[in-house]
Amino acid sequence: MSSPSALPPLSSTDRTRLVRHSERAETDRAALHAVIDEALVGHLALVVDGVPRILPFVPWRVGEEVFIHGHLKNSLMVAAAEGAQACMTITLLDGLVMARSAFHHSANFRSAVIYGTPRLVSDADEKAALLHQMMIKVTPDRVSAIRPANSRELNATAVLGLSLAEASLKVRTGGPIDAEADYGLPVWAGVVPLTLTAGIPVTDTNTAPPGPSGY
Amino acid sequence: MSSPSALPPLSSTDRTRLVRHSERAETDRAALHAVIDEALVGHLALVVDGVPRILPFVPWRVGEEVFIHGHLKNSLMVAAAEGAQACMTITLLDGLVMARSAFHHSANFRSAVIYGTPRLVSDADEKAALLHQMMIKVTPDRVSAIRPANSRELNATAVLGLSLAEASLKVRTGGPIDAEADYGLPVWAGVVPLTLTAGIPVTDTNTAPPGPSGY
Repeated sequence: MSSPSALPPLSSTDRTRLVRHSERAETDRAALHAVIDEALVGHLALVVDGVPRILPFVPWRVGEEVFIHGHLKNSLMVAAAEGAQACMTITLLDGLVMARSAFHHSANFRSAVIYGTPRLVSDADEKAALLHQMMIKVTPDRVSAIRPANSRELNATAVLGLSLAEASLKVRTGGPIDAEADYGLPVWAGVVPLTLTAGIPVTDTNTAPPGPSGY
Repeated sequence: MSSPSALPPLSSTDRTRLVRHSERAETDRAALHAVIDEALVGHLALVVDGVPRILPFVPWRVGEEVFIHGHLKNSLMVAAAEGAQACMTITLLDGLVMARSAFHHSANFRSAVIYGTPRLVSDADEKAALLHQMMIKVTPDRVSAIRPANSRELNATAVLGLSLAEASLKVRTGGPIDAEADYGLPVWAGVVPLTLTAGIPVTDTNTAPPGPSGY
């Protein structure tokens, strides 16, 4: 859908091949990167006690790997550390597609589905560098001013990496596609664009309690 | 966190009990309803060929059940029809919480996690009524003007219901909570509110191709 990048395209496997609306498969790897880079929420699932469990995380990307972080004892971090297979889905909702019939209503979206066996990042330096990359994604202008994590904080934080080797990206854009007989119906049709919008920042007014010296 | 409603509160099970930040557990069932009613995207996971698979859906609620729909042959619809256990997670991101240290950055969010064995709605009348409820959620002002689904369209559509009997809701609100020693750092701290915002609707300019009679 976008111009092909110089990166090798996404190639599908049995579980990432789009069965329906295969024309919505986006194989440009740069488009997958863009979705991960834009998203502030992604969902990871692993099987815990025989049942799938999904939790939300902040995803970020370095090269061909997507990362999430959480508490060392987070149930999905623990399950992933045991070598279980995982699925991560990152969905960006771009609009509501309003058609002339109920059935042809749809959504414009970009949805990445990534399969693999996550790796728990165990090297302390690598973990610190990766978490720094996350901060650059979320708050690039403040990252040099905040206090970096200390070793106790780093030790309490688990970082998982998931290769982008097995991934699909499904993209819908554009207006409604109605049945021919419905185009004349007297009802508005079109797209309501949706964007995640930042509001006016609310400054934290908390101040530190005075120390023994009174400041 | 909100005022308790007259509904019975959410009660936790081993898999819905919040282990970390248990103070963020919201047990008011009305708050869970509000999250489902607001969300335009939810993620459902089932185990397919031994591996979790997550896909996004539009969730809607009728009473104490959350519904999604999809193509009859959607892999998760098929897996659910076979009686597999599922997890649905619905996440609303309300803000980025900017702290004075990297570690204490957080997000304001409402995240519902629902476990259960979905039921495939097989009764045609119930399915039609449920899909009508979805349209009322998504586009209440247009629902009476659009063409309702015909039987062929209804037959191609699967609707899954998932009981809200086993569900948790985790909610974070408010500003950053920093380590005491960090409050004096010369860096802005606060919350950047985030909302999914509707833009200016884009009217579909497609018109039906003329029929044999030229109109």
